[in-house]
Amino acid sequence: MEDLKDVYLSPLPESPYVKPFRFNYTQNGKEKTWDLLEVHDSVAIIVFNVTRRVMIFVKQFRPAIYYNSIKPEDRKASKIDTNKYPASLGVALEICAGIIDKNLPIEEIAKEEVLEECGYNVELSNLEKVIAYRSGVGVQGALQTMFYCEVTDDMKTEQGGGVDDEIIEVIEKTIPEVEEMLRSQDILSSPPSCLFALMWFIHNKADKFRK
Amino acid sequence: MEDLKDVYLSPLPESPYVKPFRFNYTQNGKEKTWDLLEVHDSVAIIVFNVTRRVMIFVKQFRPAIYYNSIKPEDRKASKIDTNKYPASLGVALEICAGIIDKNLPIEEIAKEEVLEECGYNVELSNLEKVIAYRSGVGVQGALQTMFYCEVTDDMKTEQGGGVDDEIIEVIEKTIPEVEEMLRSQDILSSPPSCLFALMWFIHNKADKFRK
Repeated sequence: MEDLKDVYLSPLPESPYVKPFRFNYTQNGKEKTWDLLEVHDSVAIIVFNVTRRVMIFVKQFRPAIYYNSIKPEDRKASKIDTNKYPASLGVALEICAGIIDKNLPIEEIAKEEVLEECGYNVELSNLEKVIAYRSGVGVQGALQTMFYCEVTDDMKTEQGGGVDDEIIEVIEKTIPEVEEMLRSQDILSSPPSCLFALMWFIHNKADKFRK
Repeated sequence: MEDLKDVYLSPLPESPYVKPFRFNYTQNGKEKTWDLLEVHDSVAIIVFNVTRRVMIFVKQFRPAIYYNSIKPEDRKASKIDTNKYPASLGVALEICAGIIDKNLPIEEIAKEEVLEECGYNVELSNLEKVIAYRSGVGVQGALQTMFYCEVTDDMKTEQGGGVDDEIIEVIEKTIPEVEEMLRSQDILSSPPSCLFALMWFIHNKADKFRK
């Protein structure tokens, strides 16, 4: 995962993933503009293994996080210095998630992501809806729906780790380790949706799994 | 806030807010690209009024949320039909927040935002750091630092509501109302950072304010 080289930035071509545009409007008689981005809706799944009482995370290299760890003056280089900025700076710890890019019920997409990323084969009836929200309010406002799902070791039928070119490591954390994360004074390389998920789990589910 | 007209989309010009580009890299010997966005780092502040035991929210029209409530086939119109899509679809409920666009300590920026948006004049020593995290992992990975701050009615020296063209309404919610939000089965027009903030408050702080 951390073998990284030949890092450079280039202008954005026509992209299926990032479609920036300007939103023009008149609010209370005043003309305004707002620059934003079209992105896909998505699902996120809190996966808890009840056999070993661990929460299942995915760890992967995220260019957006890596880029933001580079000092502004070093971003202008024709190539980014990967000795000064090792790949580990861009490795994020997240709950299982995926974009909705197929015409399927979102529960089916959630089920697929849990299998592909984490290796657990869950029934649709195992998925408990937690909440749905806008994934951002600034430049992107796509819908994300979060589920909770309890799994057992028996349900682990695949390796996990993603499909195609994805390089994803499955990570397990105990309840005390999750609580420790939430008390962290360092910068967490986890998105706020993941932090919400952890806090939701600790508040609503964790007690029944404590010894 | 909800007087909205003349809504249309246009290509993104050179923008100080949204700077999209392509990130090129070679991971484990394989050439890859990722499209992303440069955005500002930011602060977010959980404000709780201990005099009346209410959490302080800000409510505002958010183009990114409004846009995502428009059906894809209706996005192509030369003007968006604001009768079919009223402004209320884009009104978000958030905790106080702001981008870091000045060379000041982040606590100073947090203090300014609480005053400008919510009207409370807080001391720097009132700000308790909650956690710092990357605000996204997909297209943006800017740093957001979250604070918690208790205020009293006496500290409300200004109206709040934002500066310049901002149209922001200050909203108060009791602890049971916050808990009700977190159990919502509807789509919440709040970002995940706000949901984390609410869950964090309920889990760590709310008990001492319950009667």
